[in-house]
Amino acid sequence: MIRDDLRDMPPATPFDDDKLKEECGVFGVIGVTDAANFVALGMHALQHRGQEAGGIVAYDPDTGFNSARHFGYVRDNFTSQRVMETLPGALGIGHVRYSTAGSKGHTAIRDVQPFFGEFAMGGAAIAHNGNITNANALRRELIERGSIFQSSSDSECIIHLMARSLQRNIPERMKDALRRVEGAFSVVAMTRTKLIGVRDARGVRPLVLGKIGDQGYALSSETCALDIIGAEFVREIEPGEMVVISAGKVESFKPFDPKPSRFCIFEQVYFSRPDSILGGRSVYETRRQIGVELAREAPVEADLVCPVPDSGTPAAIGFSHESGIPYGMGIIRNQYMGRTFIEPSEQIRNMGVRLKLNVNRALIRDKRIILVDDSVVRGTTSRKIKDMLLDAGAAEVHFRIASPPTMWPCFYGVDTPDRDKLLAAQMTVDEMRDHLGVDSLKFISLDGLYRAAGVAEGRDAAAPAFCDACFSGEYPVVPSDMIEKGFEMKTAAE
Amino acid sequence: MIRDDLRDMPPATPFDDDKLKEECGVFGVIGVTDAANFVALGMHALQHRGQEAGGIVAYDPDTGFNSARHFGYVRDNFTSQRVMETLPGALGIGHVRYSTAGSKGHTAIRDVQPFFGEFAMGGAAIAHNGNITNANALRRELIERGSIFQSSSDSECIIHLMARSLQRNIPERMKDALRRVEGAFSVVAMTRTKLIGVRDARGVRPLVLGKIGDQGYALSSETCALDIIGAEFVREIEPGEMVVISAGKVESFKPFDPKPSRFCIFEQVYFSRPDSILGGRSVYETRRQIGVELAREAPVEADLVCPVPDSGTPAAIGFSHESGIPYGMGIIRNQYMGRTFIEPSEQIRNMGVRLKLNVNRALIRDKRIILVDDSVVRGTTSRKIKDMLLDAGAAEVHFRIASPPTMWPCFYGVDTPDRDKLLAAQMTVDEMRDHLGVDSLKFISLDGLYRAAGVAEGRDAAAPAFCDACFSGEYPVVPSDMIEKGFEMKTAAE
Amino acid sequence: MIRDDLRDMPPATPFDDDKLKEECGVFGVIGVTDAANFVALGMHALQHRGQEAGGIVAYDPDTGFNSARHFGYVRDNFTSQRVMETLPGALGIGHVRYSTAGSKGHTAIRDVQPFFGEFAMGGAAIAHNGNITNANALRRELIERGSIFQSSSDSECIIHLMARSLQRNIPERMKDALRRVEGAFSVVAMTRTKLIGVRDARGVRPLVLGKIGDQGYALSSETCALDIIGAEFVREIEPGEMVVISAGKVESFKPFDPKPSRFCIFEQVYFSRPDSILGGRSVYETRRQIGVELAREAPVEADLVCPVPDSGTPAAIGFSHESGIPYGMGIIRNQYMGRTFIEPSEQIRNMGVRLKLNVNRALIRDKRIILVDDSVVRGTTSRKIKDMLLDAGAAEVHFRIASPPTMWPCFYGVDTPDRDKLLAAQMTVDEMRDHLGVDSLKFISLDGLYRAAGVAEGRDAAAPAFCDACFSGEYPVVPSDMIEKGFEMKTAAE
Amino acid sequence: MIRDDLRDMPPATPFDDDKLKEECGVFGVIGVTDAANFVALGMHALQHRGQEAGGIVAYDPDTGFNSARHFGYVRDNFTSQRVMETLPGALGIGHVRYSTAGSKGHTAIRDVQPFFGEFAMGGAAIAHNGNITNANALRRELIERGSIFQSSSDSECIIHLMARSLQRNIPERMKDALRRVEGAFSVVAMTRTKLIGVRDARGVRPLVLGKIGDQGYALSSETCALDIIGAEFVREIEPGEMVVISAGKVESFKPFDPKPSRFCIFEQVYFSRPDSILGGRSVYETRRQIGVELAREAPVEADLVCPVPDSGTPAAIGFSHESGIPYGMGIIRNQYMGRTFIEPSEQIRNMGVRLKLNVNRALIRDKRIILVDDSVVRGTTSRKIKDMLLDAGAAEVHFRIASPPTMWPCFYGVDTPDRDKLLAAQMTVDEMRDHLGVDSLKFISLDGLYRAAGVAEGRDAAAPAFCDACFSGEYPVVPSDMIEKGFEMKTAAE
Repeated sequence: MIRDDLRDMPPATPFDDDKLKEECGVFGVIGVTDAANFVALGMHALQHRGQEAGGIVAYDPDTGFNSARHFGYVRDNFTSQRVMETLPGALGIGHVRYSTAGSKGHTAIRDVQPFFGEFAMGGAAIAHNGNITNANALRRELIERGSIFQSSSDSECIIHLMARSLQRNIPERMKDALRRVEGAFSVVAMTRTKLIGVRDARGVRPLVLGKIGDQGYALSSETCALDIIGAEFVREIEPGEMVVISAGKVESFKPFDPKPSRFCIFEQVYFSRPDSILGGRSVYETRRQIGVELAREAPVEADLVCPVPDSGTPAAIGFSHESGIPYGMGIIRNQYMGRTFIEPSEQIRNMGVRLKLNVNRALIRDKRIILVDDSVVRGTTSRKIKDMLLDAGAAEVHFRIASPPTMWPCFYGVDTPDRDKLLAAQMTVDEMRDHLGVDSLKFISLDGLYRAAGVAEGRDAAAPAFCDACFSGEYPVVPSDMIEKGFEMKTAAE
Repeated sequence: MIRDDLRDMPPATPFDDDKLKEECGVFGVIGVTDAANFVALGMHALQHRGQEAGGIVAYDPDTGFNSARHFGYVRDNFTSQRVMETLPGALGIGHVRYSTAGSKGHTAIRDVQPFFGEFAMGGAAIAHNGNITNANALRRELIERGSIFQSSSDSECIIHLMARSLQRNIPERMKDALRRVEGAFSVVAMTRTKLIGVRDARGVRPLVLGKIGDQGYALSSETCALDIIGAEFVREIEPGEMVVISAGKVESFKPFDPKPSRFCIFEQVYFSRPDSILGGRSVYETRRQIGVELAREAPVEADLVCPVPDSGTPAAIGFSHESGIPYGMGIIRNQYMGRTFIEPSEQIRNMGVRLKLNVNRALIRDKRIILVDDSVVRGTTSRKIKDMLLDAGAAEVHFRIASPPTMWPCFYGVDTPDRDKLLAAQMTVDEMRDHLGVDSLKFISLDGLYRAAGVAEGRDAAAPAFCDACFSGEYPVVPSDMIEKGFEMKTAAE
Repeated sequence: MIRDDLRDMPPATPFDDDKLKEECGVFGVIGVTDAANFVALGMHALQHRGQEAGGIVAYDPDTGFNSARHFGYVRDNFTSQRVMETLPGALGIGHVRYSTAGSKGHTAIRDVQPFFGEFAMGGAAIAHNGNITNANALRRELIERGSIFQSSSDSECIIHLMARSLQRNIPERMKDALRRVEGAFSVVAMTRTKLIGVRDARGVRPLVLGKIGDQGYALSSETCALDIIGAEFVREIEPGEMVVISAGKVESFKPFDPKPSRFCIFEQVYFSRPDSILGGRSVYETRRQIGVELAREAPVEADLVCPVPDSGTPAAIGFSHESGIPYGMGIIRNQYMGRTFIEPSEQIRNMGVRLKLNVNRALIRDKRIILVDDSVVRGTTSRKIKDMLLDAGAAEVHFRIASPPTMWPCFYGVDTPDRDKLLAAQMTVDEMRDHLGVDSLKFISLDGLYRAAGVAEGRDAAAPAFCDACFSGEYPVVPSDMIEKGFEMKTAAE
Repeated sequence: MIRDDLRDMPPATPFDDDKLKEECGVFGVIGVTDAANFVALGMHALQHRGQEAGGIVAYDPDTGFNSARHFGYVRDNFTSQRVMETLPGALGIGHVRYSTAGSKGHTAIRDVQPFFGEFAMGGAAIAHNGNITNANALRRELIERGSIFQSSSDSECIIHLMARSLQRNIPERMKDALRRVEGAFSVVAMTRTKLIGVRDARGVRPLVLGKIGDQGYALSSETCALDIIGAEFVREIEPGEMVVISAGKVESFKPFDPKPSRFCIFEQVYFSRPDSILGGRSVYETRRQIGVELAREAPVEADLVCPVPDSGTPAAIGFSHESGIPYGMGIIRNQYMGRTFIEPSEQIRNMGVRLKLNVNRALIRDKRIILVDDSVVRGTTSRKIKDMLLDAGAAEVHFRIASPPTMWPCFYGVDTPDRDKLLAAQMTVDEMRDHLGVDSLKFISLDGLYRAAGVAEGRDAAAPAFCDACFSGEYPVVPSDMIEKGFEMKTAAE
C-alpha cells in the first residue's frame, strides 16, 4: 500500500492505553428529513466505540451521494451548518473509528469509513464494525483479478466483492460478498433507496433496530444512540440476519448457514455504554451484578469500596451493595483530558495517570480500600493507581476485577496488545498481585461473569453462550490471517 | 473600547448554561526547571474553573519575559514541545479563564491574562481570580490621567495602578495598587525574581501555597493542582495576606486593613474540585455531608437515589448513606460533549440535554427516584432531566438540592444570570416544584449547609463565616460598579 | 460518483477567468538523493500549468510508496521539512492541477494526481497531462466488470486498465492500457524501480527528458523545470514514444500505431513559460516573432506599444522592434494578486481587473496606444482594459492579438468555455472590434502564427504541423465523449 | 518587553533579502459606505510597501471602533464577507507592514498597526509609515511616568504622548505628540468623526490626498492606491502639513517649525510603484529616465539590454531607447514565489535565486548582455544572476545600476543591513566589479539621478532637494537612538 502525508494524522491519545479498545461504531437512518443530522447525533452517542475519525454518507435524489470524513470527534466535525448542509437527504449512514494512532501506525483519511462503490446499477456505501479474519487472502485474490484497493482497511474487500458479484441488485451482491467473508461483522449499508443491516452468523458484534416516528428507521451498534435521537428500540438484529429497510418496511433475510450465537462478552464488561440495553437488560445492571458476584466470590474486610472511574463504577456500586461496605469516590477523574503533556523533568512520578486521575486524599487516608476495575490488560495503569493510593496514605489496597484474567488477543474488531504484553498471559494471579504490589487481587470467575450476564447456570464449556476468547482462548472463528502471520492457537495442553 | 476581529473568538459552549460559572483559576511556580511545564499542568488541573482561554508568562534571564495566550483548553495549547520551549525559565504564572462567549459578548485574545507591564525597574506579570467591584471608576480615573487600556478586563487596572505608583520596587507598587482596589481577588504575580500571591482582605476567593522539592514553591487556586505536579500542600494563603517568594524563601505581609473572613461558600457547593482540600477537609467530604444533612432535613420514601452527574454525585452518595435508600446511576453522562449539534427538525424534544445526559432506562423504570443536584439556577436543565426520567418510566421524581435557593447574582468573580433569570428569585419553592413538575422539591437550609461545611452551630447571622450573598443577598463588599449600572441591593424588607 | 465534503475545496481564483487554462503539469525524477525535493522544485517551475492542487509520490525501499496531495500552491505545501521527510527515496513523480473551482464544480482531494494502484507484481503511480476523450465509455465498461472508481478523474481509467491487463510487468501493462485510451496524454509514471514517460501518438502535449549529474534523469512537461533543478535538457520525448528509465539507463519503445505529429500550437502562444524551449527555440523567441509577424500583417500609426502583462509582453517587444514604435509599460501588474475582494458598493467600475492591473496614467495620457495581448477568449477583460486606458486619457487604442480568433473548445486537456461563450465564435472580427470599443482590432493569421512558430511555408491545410483545433475546428482526435454529450463537430460548410 | 508565543509568527520570506525594504504603507478613507472595503483595496495596492501583516480599524456609530489585524497578505485576510462585515462604518484606516521576520527577530500581532487609544474625550486610531529616531528616549520617559507599553513598535509612543497631552481634542493632542517626535513619519489617523493625515516637517515619506465621489476623501502613501478605488488624485500632503478631514471638508494646519523639504529619493528608485505619481510625474517615467541617463553616463557595446525583473525593467527600457541596443527578457520571473524550499543536497548551486528567476537560455546564448538592476545592497543576488547568465552561455555581462552605490543605512523607516553588510561601504566600484565577476560595473551618478528625478541642475550639495543619506551619508535628521547604540555618523574626512 501507499502511505499518505502525515498531515492527515490525528494526534495521539495515549491516555487509555491500558484498555482494550472497541474499533468501531455504526449507525444509519432512513425515512427522516435531513438524515445526516440524525446520523451525526447517533455517532456522537457511539463515540466511546471510536474516537479517531468519523464519516457520514447521505443520499439525496437531487445531488446524489455526498460524504464527509474527518479525523477527530463528531462534536468537532459534524455540527456546523456549513458541513451538514452538504449532506442532504432522507437516508444516511455513519461510522466512528477507534484511534490506532501511535500504536499501530498510520491511518489516512481514505481509510475512514463508510466506503463507497459505484456499480452498474448504482452506488452503495457501507460501514462495518468488526474484523474480517480472511481479509489478506481475499485482498490478494482480488488484486490478482484486477481490483484497485484505495485503503488499508479490511472492509474494502466487501465493496470489491460486491463489485464483482454477478447479481443484479445490491442487496443480493452484498449477500454474495458477505458469504465469502469470515470473521465478526456488523454492517450498515445504503443504496439510493435502501438502508441495510447485517450481523455475521455468530452475532459477535452488536446491532439494533429502532423506529423513528411513523416512517423512519434506524440501525445502531447500541441502543444508547437510539435514545439520543428519540427513536424507539424495536429489537436486536439477529445473528446471521440481514434486514433491508425501504419505504417504511423492514424485510428480513437469513443469507448465511446458521451457527450458534457467540456474542462478545466484553461488550457487557466494558465496551458498551452502561445505559445501552443488551439481551433485555441494561448494561449498567449487568455490571452492577458483576460487582455483586465478585463480592460473593472474593470478599475482604475493608473500610471503603472505590471504583477506578468511570469503567469500574457500576461494579463497585454492586460490590458495596452486596458487601455492605460503604461506597466512595476515592479517585477523581479530570474531565478535560487530552493529548500528552510535556513532563517536568524531575520530582514527578506517574505523571500520565495523574493527568486523568487524582486521589481524594482526605477521604482515603488510613483506610482499607477495595479498588474495583473492569479489567487488567498490561497492568501499567493499575500499578500507578495503587501507588497513588499508597502515597496518599491508604492503609491497604485490595484489587477486585470485574472480568476474568485477559489472556488472549481479540481478532474480531477489538484492538488488543500482543499476548506477550498481556499481564495475565505472563503471570499467575498471585504473581500479578505481587507485581502490582497490592494486598490482594481477585478476578471474577468465568462462571460468575456468565451468571452476572444472565446465564444462571454459568458457562457451558461445550457450547458457551458468548465469545469469551480473550479469557478462554477458544476462538469461535479461526483467525486465518493471523495464523498466517504466526499466531499460535491454544493447544490442548493449555 | 475597540473590538477585535471575531476570528479570535472561541466557539460557544452552551451546554452547561444552567450553572453558575467560576470565572478563573490562577497558578504559579518558582524554583523549578522549566517552570512553564508545571504551570501548564497546574492550569490543566484547574480547567474546571475556566475553559475559554489560558495564558502563561515565564521568565528566563537569557530571553526575558515570554508569554503564550490561547483560546481553548490547556491540553490543546500548552502541551507541544514547540510551544513550551518558547517559555523557558524557573519562574512562571498561568491563568485559565471561563468562557463568557455568547452570553456576555466578545473576548479578544488581548483580554486573556496574565497581563504584563514594563516599569522603570523591570517587568511584572499578573493574573487574577475574582472581580474588582470599582473597576469602572478606576478605569475612568486612569484614562483621565493618560493611561492607555489595551483590554476590556477589570484586571488591567491593577497593572496601570502599579505603573503609576511612586514606590521603588514591584511588591510595594502592588500593595499600593491593591489598596485602591475593591472586590474579591486572589492574585498571582511575578517579577524577574519573585513569585507573589495575594488574597483580598476578606479572602473571598481561594489561594493555596505548595512546596516542590527543596527549593520550589507553587501558588494555586486549589490543592488539586498541587497534586498533579507532586507538590506538597503547605497552607492556605490567609485573607488579606501577601506572600513574596524568592530564592527558596516565603515572606508574608499584611498590607490591608483587617476584615472578617468571608470565603465563598459556593466553592464548597460546586466550584472547587471534590479532591481539593478546603479548611482541612476534602470538598468531597463536605458535599457528601451536605447529602447527609439533606436526608435528615428532607427525607422521602423512594427506591433509588440518583445524582445528576457529576456535580450531584457526592451529595447523592451522602443522601443514600444517611437514608439507607440504594444509590444508583440513573442518568449517564456522555464524556464526549462539545459544541451545539444541529437539531433534527422534528420528532425530538430536549435535544440539548440529551447530548450530555441519557437516562439509564432499564434501571429507573417504575421506580421512585430521589434526584440530587447541586443547585437550581434557571431551572431549564432540571425540567428537561425530569422529563427524561418520566419519559423513561420513572414512577416518582423527588428533587433534592445541595444548596439553598440561588436568589442573588454574584459580583465577586462568578458569572451569574441577572436576578430576573434566577428561578428562585421569581418563585417560592412550591411554585418552583410545580414549575419543574416534580413530585417534591427541597433545598438544604442555609444552616444545614453551614453545618455540612463544618460550622457546627450553623450560620451566625451577625457575622457569617462565609460569603453567601447568592443565597442571602448580603454582600460583604459593596458592588459599586453594578450599583452605578442600576443594581438594587436587598432592602431591609426583603 | 460520490461528492466529498466541501471543506476540501480550494478558494476560487477567478482573476484570470478570461484565459484558456492548461490543466496540468507533470514531473518525475530517478537516481537522486531525496527525489521528492527535486519533484517539488520541478512542480514549482510548472505551477503556471496548474494552481489548484499538487501531489507527489515517492518510493523508498524501507518505507515503500509514500504520497502527499494538497490543494494550493507547491510553495505552500511542499517546502517544509516535516512534509518532505515523509517522502523519502531516490524516485518520485509529481503533478500540478489547474483549478476548475467555480466553473466546473467540485474537486476532491482524491481527484488529485498522481494515482496509485497496487498490482500483484507491485505498486505503480501515474500522473497525466491531457485528456482521455473516450474516458466515459471506458469507465462504464470497467464498472460493468467490477472496478471501483475512487475519483471523478479520467486518468483513473488508466490505472484500472493496467490492473486488468494480463501482462506480467508494469511497463507492458501500461502499454496495454494506453492502447485502449484515446485523446491527448503525456504520462509520467513510476514503479518501485522505474521512471516511465509516454506521449500519445500525435504528441499533442509536451514532455521532455533531462539528465541530472551522472546517474539521475528527469521527465518534465517543460524545460524550465529542468533549469530549476540544474538538470541538462537532453531531448523531447517523441510523439508515440514510451521511455523506461532505470539504473541510469533510458530505454525507448514505440507502443502505438504511428500517426502524424500534431503538437498543441497554443503551448507556443500562451501555455508554456517563455523560458522553456520547444522545437529547439525558446518560447519567448517564438512569441517575439509572433509580434514581428503581427506588426507586418497589421501595422498602425501610434505612439506606444504596450503589452497586456505578462502574457502579451514578448509579442509587444517584437511588435515594437519591427514597427519602430517605442515599447512602454502602459499597464502595471500587481504582484500580490489573490482571491476576490468585496467590492465597495458604488463609485467603482471594473474592480476585478483593477485588482490585477493598473494603468500607468502619466505615461499613456494623450497617446495612441497599440495594445498587444496573447488571445481573446470571452473578451470581458479586454473590454475592461480598454476602458481603463480611455479613462486615463489614451487618445486611441489599437488592439493586436498574438493568436488567431479562438473559435472552438479544446478537448485535449485545456479548460475552454463552451462555444457560445467564445467571442470569436459569436462575432466577426469587425463586430468584435465594435463590441470591445477599440479603434482597431487585428488577429495574427494562422499562416503568420505557423511562420512565427518556425514553419516557414505557413500552415499545410492537408497535414498541419500543429493541433490548432481551437482556431480551425479541425480536431485530430475525435472527441467521442463530448460528441456523446451533444458537441457538434465543424461541418464542411463552416 | 515581553515576547509572545511564536505561533503568531509569519513564515520567513527570504527571497528578496538583497533589497532595501520599505517598512510600511498607510491608507485611510472617510465619507463612503463600508469604508473598510476601500481600505482593504488601498492596502492591497500598497502591498509592495509591506507584506508581513496588515491591520484595519473602522468606526461605526452603532458598534464603535472595530479592528482586525492579521499576519500575511491583504488578499488572504481582508476579502471575506465574514471579516469585512465586522468592520462597518464610513470611516477607516489601514496599515501594511514589512516583514522583518528572520532578520530582526520577532513580531507579535500586537505590534501590528493601527494602534488604538481611548482618551477621556473618545478613542483614536493611528497608523504610521516611517521611523521615530528618538523613540527609545521617549519610551523611557513615558514608562518612568507610568505608561504601559503593549508593543515593541516605536509608533506606540505617539499614542501615549497623545494620552498625556493636556489638550481638549484629539487633533490638538496629536499636534502636541508629534512635536515631541523626531524622525520621518507619514501618519494617517482617525477619531470617531475625523480622518487625519500628517507628514513630518521634511516630508521624508510620501502621503497623498484623493477624492472619492462628492463627499469622500482618501489618504494614501501612493497614488496607485487611489486608482484602485476609483479616487481622483487631488494633491500631495505638504511636508509639515496636517490635514483634518470631516463632513466633506479638508482643513490644513502647519503644526511644525518649517524645514527644507527632503523627500526620500529611494522612493523614486525602488520603493514606490511605477504607476504612482510623485512630483507630477509617473515613477515609471523617472525610472525610464534613469536608464536614459545611465546609457549616457556609462555606454557599452553589447547585443541586448536585459532588466533584472521587475525592479530593473523601466530603467532597462530607457537604456535601450537611449542606446539603441535591443531590449529583451533575458531573465524570466516565476510568479508563484513563496517561502523557502528544501534544497536537494547536491548538484545544485544558486537554488534560492532560481526559485524566483530563470535565464531565458535560448535568448542570451553567445550574446553580450547589459544587465540593468535598481541597486546593489549586499551583492549576493547580483552574483548569482551573473553566474546564471554565464552558465547559460552569455558572452559578456555588463552591469548597470539605476542608483548610486548604497553606502549608508537608512533610519527613516527602511530596513537596511548594517554598514558592514553593504557591499559599497566595503569596496570601491572596481573591487565590486571583480567581486561580482562581471565584465563591467557602473552606477548612475548622484547628479544623474537628481536630473532623472527632475532636478535639471543636479544635486545642490548645500541644500539637496532629496534625502539621499543612503548614498551620501548626509542625514537630515540626527538618528539619536542609533547614535546612542553606537552608530557613527560620517565624518568630515569621509
